Parts: sequence; structure tokens; C-alpha cells
Amino acid sequence: MAYFRIACLSLLVAAAAHAENEEAGRTRAQVCAVCHGQFGISVDPAAPNLAGQPAAYLVEQLRNFRSGKRENPVMSVIAKPLSDEDIDALARWYASIEIEVKQP
Amino acid sequence: MAYFRIACLSLLVAAAAHAENEEAGRTRAQVCAVCHGQFGISVDPAAPNLAGQPAAYLVEQLRNFRSGKRENPVMSVIAKPLSDEDIDALARWYASIEIEVKQP
Repeated sequence: MAYFRIACLSLLVAAAAHAENEEAGRTRAQVCAVCHGQFGISVDPAAPNLAGQPAAYLVEQLRNFRSGKRENPVMSVIAKPLSDEDIDALARWYASIEIEVKQP
Repeated sequence: MAYFRIACLSLLVAAAAHAENEEAGRTRAQVCAVCHGQFGISVDPAAPNLAGQPAAYLVEQLRNFRSGKRENPVMSVIAKPLSDEDIDALARWYASIEIEVKQP
């Protein structure tokens, strides 16, 4: 029973950290909204929608922009000062936005 | 009146060509579905959702993969043989899939 309680507590702590991380990402994403929209739906035809993108994909792309492996006049500047924590938080925030596709 | 009819006819022809282009893209996209899903919602955490992405963004990225400006082990191979028409058709197809975001 004690193990079960510890396991539950660990899950709760992990879930709280996850939510906190998402919230941090939401705050950091304010500058991104200029091109990618308030909820990750792009307001610029040259910028992709980020809402509902897989977090792993977003992390990889932000790291690539930061390192210079992927280049874009705006994103190369934006990504430069981001820490790994910033990148994780941003990725979690955008991945947390649910999207629904209407079958064409 | 004649000008109006010609204008209407031109619009109809353009709309038909647009729809045909989208349909061609849908057919070409069958191989993309392996990672990006049947309707552009990714089934691989390393691959982005393409449903509802701006066509201009998709065209630019496919051209970048084709030219080598953007690199990815899978996409660099996939994009290599694509013609400009293939790229336009694929971009139109994915851009035509409507998505809805649920406000978080």
C-alpha cells in the first residue's frame, strides 16, 4: 500500500511539474504569437501552425534553429538565446493545444 | 456583360484547376501518410502535422529539402525527385485540410 501511495504521489508531482512547464511555455510563447498566432495557428503564410505539433518535433526544430542546422531569418535569431528548459516548455505548450481535423 | 461572363468563366476554370491540383496532391501524398498520417496528422513524434499548414510554408520547406538547404534523413530523399508541380499539389492538398483548434 505504501508503494502504491508513493507511486501515486510521484505521478501527481510529475503531472504538476508537467503543467507548470506548459504554463511557462505559454508565457514564453507570447513573442511567438506575432507570427504563429495566440494559440499556435499561424497568422503569417510563411510560418507554420504549431498547435498540436508533436513535442519531440518542436524540440528538435528549435534546437536545430539554435545550433544553425536549420536556418530562417527570424527563427535563427529567436532561437539563439533559448535554454533547453525554454525549448522544452515551448514545445510542451504548443503540443498541449488540441486540434481536430475535419476529414476532407 | 461579356467581360463579366469571361471573368466568371476564368474564375470557374481557375477553381477547377485548383481542385484538380489538390486531388493530384492527395494522390501523391499516399507515401507521406506513412509518417504524416492519412489526413496530415502525424503518426510519428518526429514528423510534423501537415494538415492545415499554410501552402506557402509547405512549398518553401519542400523546396528546401529538395535543394538541401534543409536536411532530414527521410525528407531529403523523399523531396529529391519532386517537380515544382508535385510540390505545389502536395502543398495545396495539405493546406486544404481544415483544422480546428480547441482553445486551451
